[in-house]
Amino acid sequence: MSKKVIMSDQVVGEHCSVQGALHQDSYQEGYSFPREVLFDKARMKRLFHNKWCFVGTRGDVPDTGSYLSFRLFENSYFLIHGTDGVIRCMVNRCAHQSAHLVTENVGKCPAKIMCPNHQWTYNLDDGSLYHAPRMSDEFVCSDAGKASSLDNIKLEEVAGMLFMSLGEGAPDEDIQGMRELLDPYVGPFHLDKEGYKLAYHEREVLDANWLTVMINNRECCHCQMNHKGLLKLFSDSSFNGGREPSYMAAFSKASERWDDKGLLWKEKAFDEHDCCRIARYPMKEGFKSTSFDGKPCSAMLIGPHKEYDEGTLSFWLNPNAWVHFTSDHIATNWVLPIDEHKCILYTSWIVHKDAVEGVDYEKEHLTSVWKVTNSEDVALCRSMTQGAYSAHYRPGPFSDDERHCTQFCNWYMKYSR
Amino acid sequence: MSKKVIMSDQVVGEHCSVQGALHQDSYQEGYSFPREVLFDKARMKRLFHNKWCFVGTRGDVPDTGSYLSFRLFENSYFLIHGTDGVIRCMVNRCAHQSAHLVTENVGKCPAKIMCPNHQWTYNLDDGSLYHAPRMSDEFVCSDAGKASSLDNIKLEEVAGMLFMSLGEGAPDEDIQGMRELLDPYVGPFHLDKEGYKLAYHEREVLDANWLTVMINNRECCHCQMNHKGLLKLFSDSSFNGGREPSYMAAFSKASERWDDKGLLWKEKAFDEHDCCRIARYPMKEGFKSTSFDGKPCSAMLIGPHKEYDEGTLSFWLNPNAWVHFTSDHIATNWVLPIDEHKCILYTSWIVHKDAVEGVDYEKEHLTSVWKVTNSEDVALCRSMTQGAYSAHYRPGPFSDDERHCTQFCNWYMKYSR
Amino acid sequence: MSKKVIMSDQVVGEHCSVQGALHQDSYQEGYSFPREVLFDKARMKRLFHNKWCFVGTRGDVPDTGSYLSFRLFENSYFLIHGTDGVIRCMVNRCAHQSAHLVTENVGKCPAKIMCPNHQWTYNLDDGSLYHAPRMSDEFVCSDAGKASSLDNIKLEEVAGMLFMSLGEGAPDEDIQGMRELLDPYVGPFHLDKEGYKLAYHEREVLDANWLTVMINNRECCHCQMNHKGLLKLFSDSSFNGGREPSYMAAFSKASERWDDKGLLWKEKAFDEHDCCRIARYPMKEGFKSTSFDGKPCSAMLIGPHKEYDEGTLSFWLNPNAWVHFTSDHIATNWVLPIDEHKCILYTSWIVHKDAVEGVDYEKEHLTSVWKVTNSEDVALCRSMTQGAYSAHYRPGPFSDDERHCTQFCNWYMKYSR
Repeated sequence: MSKKVIMSDQVVGEHCSVQGALHQDSYQEGYSFPREVLFDKARMKRLFHNKWCFVGTRGDVPDTGSYLSFRLFENSYFLIHGTDGVIRCMVNRCAHQSAHLVTENVGKCPAKIMCPNHQWTYNLDDGSLYHAPRMSDEFVCSDAGKASSLDNIKLEEVAGMLFMSLGEGAPDEDIQGMRELLDPYVGPFHLDKEGYKLAYHEREVLDANWLTVMINNRECCHCQMNHKGLLKLFSDSSFNGGREPSYMAAFSKASERWDDKGLLWKEKAFDEHDCCRIARYPMKEGFKSTSFDGKPCSAMLIGPHKEYDEGTLSFWLNPNAWVHFTSDHIATNWVLPIDEHKCILYTSWIVHKDAVEGVDYEKEHLTSVWKVTNSEDVALCRSMTQGAYSAHYRPGPFSDDERHCTQFCNWYMKYSR
Repeated sequence: MSKKVIMSDQVVGEHCSVQGALHQDSYQEGYSFPREVLFDKARMKRLFHNKWCFVGTRGDVPDTGSYLSFRLFENSYFLIHGTDGVIRCMVNRCAHQSAHLVTENVGKCPAKIMCPNHQWTYNLDDGSLYHAPRMSDEFVCSDAGKASSLDNIKLEEVAGMLFMSLGEGAPDEDIQGMRELLDPYVGPFHLDKEGYKLAYHEREVLDANWLTVMINNRECCHCQMNHKGLLKLFSDSSFNGGREPSYMAAFSKASERWDDKGLLWKEKAFDEHDCCRIARYPMKEGFKSTSFDGKPCSAMLIGPHKEYDEGTLSFWLNPNAWVHFTSDHIATNWVLPIDEHKCILYTSWIVHKDAVEGVDYEKEHLTSVWKVTNSEDVALCRSMTQGAYSAHYRPGPFSDDERHCTQFCNWYMKYSR
Repeated sequence: MSKKVIMSDQVVGEHCSVQGALHQDSYQEGYSFPREVLFDKARMKRLFHNKWCFVGTRGDVPDTGSYLSFRLFENSYFLIHGTDGVIRCMVNRCAHQSAHLVTENVGKCPAKIMCPNHQWTYNLDDGSLYHAPRMSDEFVCSDAGKASSLDNIKLEEVAGMLFMSLGEGAPDEDIQGMRELLDPYVGPFHLDKEGYKLAYHEREVLDANWLTVMINNRECCHCQMNHKGLLKLFSDSSFNGGREPSYMAAFSKASERWDDKGLLWKEKAFDEHDCCRIARYPMKEGFKSTSFDGKPCSAMLIGPHKEYDEGTLSFWLNPNAWVHFTSDHIATNWVLPIDEHKCILYTSWIVHKDAVEGVDYEKEHLTSVWKVTNSEDVALCRSMTQGAYSAHYRPGPFSDDERHCTQFCNWYMKYSR
C-alpha cells in the first residue's frame, strides 16, 4: 500500500511530521480521514458544488406532479416531475414568506405548486410564479414577480437515475461518462421511461458524520459480524474479493447463466469512471430476490428479467449512494449531510407500476432486508463518529479488502478542495 | 408600496446593491427581514431593552402571592402579586446558590418567596432578603444581605395589562400613550381590579425564530388555508381589509348594535400608537364566544357585557402579543425569544373569578379555538424558520393586506438599533 | 469567613472591583463560582489532567474480562479487569476505524477485546493489537501494528477504589496520601480482593453543569427540604454540623458501639488529605441498611461486619465522587463532565459475591434510597445551572454549614489552573 501524503495540492512525503502535534493532521493515503477533514463542513460543501450527487430515480417521482423533498446542508429541495415529463430540482422555499412549498417526504402537487401558507402558486415546469394572491395583478409579470421564481438546481438524468449539483462548475463530462458506463447495465430496465412506482420510501436522520457513513458503505468487511441477516442471502466472500474457491465456483456458474440471459456482469470497480462501481452478485441458492425468506419481493418482474434471477446488480456511486437491482424491484440508498455531525439516509423501494400492494407485494416483506441492514450500519456509523470525536482519535489503516474506502477517501480529497 | 431601504440610520436608496452579494443584506421596507436581521440575537436583545413587552395581565396573578414564571433570553423571571396589591417582576434566581425560586409555570407563594433549595426567603413586596438559614443573624441586615435582594425588573400595569422592559431606557411616554389608548377599550372590563381568575395557562417552546412568529401573527392572509377551524367563527374577509360587500353589511349591522351597547369599535391600526392595533370583529351569527360550537365559553359574563355579544375585541401589541376579549373570557397570547432559534408562546384563558370549572365552564371547550389555531400557526412558523435558514433565502414582498407586517418590520428596525 | 479573592495566582484584595463590570468576574473565597469559571471547559479539562478522579471500584469489574465504560469530555474509556488481575483504563476506540470496542455500560470481554466492527482484537492485559483481520500477517508486529495498541490511561487502585488521570503530571503523592488515609477505613472491606459483585449499575446524563453538581453534593443544607426520603434514615442534624443535643447523644452512643466493634469513626474533613472527607454516621434506630423500610439491603454481610450496624461509612472524594459503605453493600456515586453544560452521574451498588438476586437481595429494595435521592439532587442541579446561565447571575455566599463547598471551590481553583 502506498503511503503518500496528500495535503491540499502538495505531496508532503512518506511521513507527515507536524511539530508538536499529537495526531496527524493531514490525510494519508491508505488511512481513514484525519479529524480535521471529517469535521470540515466547508470542505463537504465544496464537494457538493464541485461534483454531482445521486438524489433518487425517476421511480421516486413517476407521474406528473410527483415530488420528493430532501435536504442538503441547511437547505430543503424537491424533485418535481413536470407536465413535460422532465424532472427538475427546485428550492423548497416560497418566495413570499419562506415557508416550505412541499411538506411531505413524497407527495403529489396538483396542476401547480401551491404554498400552503398564503397560496402563492408556481408553475410545475420551471418554478416561475403563476399567481400571487393579494399582490397587484401586474406583480407576477413585474421584475419582482420574475425574481420570485423558485431557484432551479442543476439536475441531470442518466438512465433514469438523478444527479444534482449545487455548483455551476460540476463537469458535464462526469454525466457523459456516467451515461456511457451506466446505460448498458441500467438501460434494459427502462427506468428512464414510465413503468415504475414508488412502493415505499423512508428516511432517517443519523447522528453520524456523513463521511463515516460513506466509508462504512465502501467495504463489507464489517458484514460478517454485523449483518447476520444479509449473510443469509449472500456469501460473505462475495463482498470481500471473492477469493474463496467455493464462491469462485458459484460465481462462475452464475456468470454463465447471466451470459445466457444477456445480463452484463463484468465488474467496474471505479476504474472506467471514478464515481462508479458496478457489480453483479450471485445470491445463495433459492433466493429469488432480496428477502429474508428468499421468496420474490414482488410478483411482477421488471426490466430485462423474464424469470427470477438469483442475483443482484449493484451500483456504488460517489459520493453518496448505493443501489440494488433485482428481478422484481430496485432498492436505492443515498445519504446527504445536514452538517458535519448529522446526515440523512434516504431509501426507496421501486416496483413495477402495475404491482399492487397486498396482492403482488407486501411492504414489510419487500423492505425488511435493507431496513434491517441499514439499521445495523447506522449503529456502526454512530459508533465510528463517536470514536472520531475522541481526543484520542487517529486515522486507521485500510486493508486491501477495504480498497474502495481508500478510493473514496482519495476521491473526496481530490474533489473537495 | 414604498421601497426605501433602511439600514441602520441611513437611507441607502431605491435599491440596495451590495457588491458581490448574492442576497440583499439590508432591510428593505415592504419586504420581510433579511437573514442577518432575523438571526441577530444582539439586536433582539436591544429591542427588549429599548421597549416594553407584554407579559400577561393581572388575571394571570389575581391574588396575593400568585406568580407566573416566564423566560426571556437566557433569563427566568416571575410576576408576583404583592401583599400591597402591586404586581412586580423579579429575577427567578436565589441569591444563595442560583436555584429557581419558583418552579411551576403558575402557582402561589405563601407569605414569602422561599427557595426550594436551602429555604432562603424573600419578601413578597420588594424581593428583599427576609431570612437566610444558617447564615449569621446579622447577615440579612448586612451589605451582603442587602445585595442579596432579588433583582426587580421594570414592570408597568396599563388597564390590567402588564408590560416589562429589560432596560432602564424604555420610555415612560410609551406607557402613558398606551394608557390613553387602551383605557377606553379595556377599562370597562376592570381587569386592573379583582374580579378575574386564571382558568388555564399553557406554554410551548417553538423551534421557530421569534420574528417569524410575530410576522405570521400580523397578517391573516394565511388564515383561509390554515385556520379552517377559526373560519367557522369569523369571515375570512374580516381579517383582510374587510372589503367584501357581505362582510361590510355584517360589520355595519354589528357596529350599530355595539353603539347601542356603548361598546367602542373604531379600529386603531398602529396609527395613534405605533405599538398597538385595536379592532372589534363581528363573529358569525350564532357564535356567542370563541368556541367551535358557538356556545358560550363561560356562564358568567365579564366587564361591560350584560348579554353575550357575537364579537371579539382584539389587541395586537408590539412587539410580542395578541389578546382577545369576548363577553365571557379573555384569551391572551404572548411570545418571547429564548434565542434567535427558539421562542416560547404563552397563552392564558381568564374568566370571571366566580366561574366554577365543570359548572360554569369546561376547560376543553373554553380553550380549544386558540389551542387549535396556535398549533396551526406553530407549524407555519417552523416552516418559515426552516426556509429562512436556507442559503437560498431572500426577503419576500408583503401585500397591502400584509401592511401590519410591514409596520412590524419597520417598527422593529427602528427600535432594535 | 475570609473574603480573599483568588484570581489565577494573584490575590487581588478584599473586594474585586472590575471597572464597568456588572458582576464579579473573579472567584471570591466563601462564594460560589463566578460564571466564567463555571462554564470554562478548558479549566475543567486542566483539572482532570492535573489531578486524579474516582471512576469506580474493583467491585464494578470483579472478574477477568469485566469492563465498565465511561465518558470524560468527548472521550469514551473503559475499565478492564486483566488476566493478571490488574484493572486498567483504556481508550474505547478501535485503532482501525474508530468504532467503540465495548458498547455496553458494563459487560464482559471474553479472552480478548474484539471490535464489533471488523473484529480487530486486542490483548486484555495491555491493549496491544493481537489480530487485525485482512491486514497482512506482518502488520501486527510492524511499527504500524504496534502503534495500533489501545491507549492506556493512568489508573491507580487504592484499597479497591480506582482513580484515573488524563495527564502525566497527576502527582503520585496524591495516591500515596489517599492510601494512607483510606486503608484503615476501607481495608477491612477487602474491596481490593475478590469477594464482591456488581448488583446494579446505572448512569444518567444530566443537563447540569458539573461543578454545580459537585457543590450540591458538598452540603446537606438542602436535604431537609429536598430529601424527605433520606431523612427517614438520618437525622437532618447529622449532615449539618451535628450540634443538636439529641443528635450528639445518639452519636455518642453509636461511637461507643463502633469502638466495641473496632470500627473507626473519627471524621476526616479534607484535613489530612485535601481530596477526601470520611465520616461514619449513625442511622436512625431500626435502620439496618440504607433502605426506606430499614430492613437489610442484602442478606449477606460484608467486610468487617459480623452483624448489621445502624450506620454508614461515607467518603467524599475530590473532585467527583461520594461513596457509602453499610454492613451489607457499597453504593458508589461519581460524576464526570461531558462539557460545561452536561455531565454523567454513575451509580453502582456492590454486594457480597455470593449474594443472589431474588434470594439475598431485591434490586428495587437495594437501590431505591440512592435512586430517589439522586433524582432529587438532579432536579436541584438543573435548576442551579439554569440560574447560572442567567445574565443576572452573581456568586452567592456559603454558610459555615456549607464549608465543604468552600473547600471544594478553593481546591478546584487551585488545581485547575
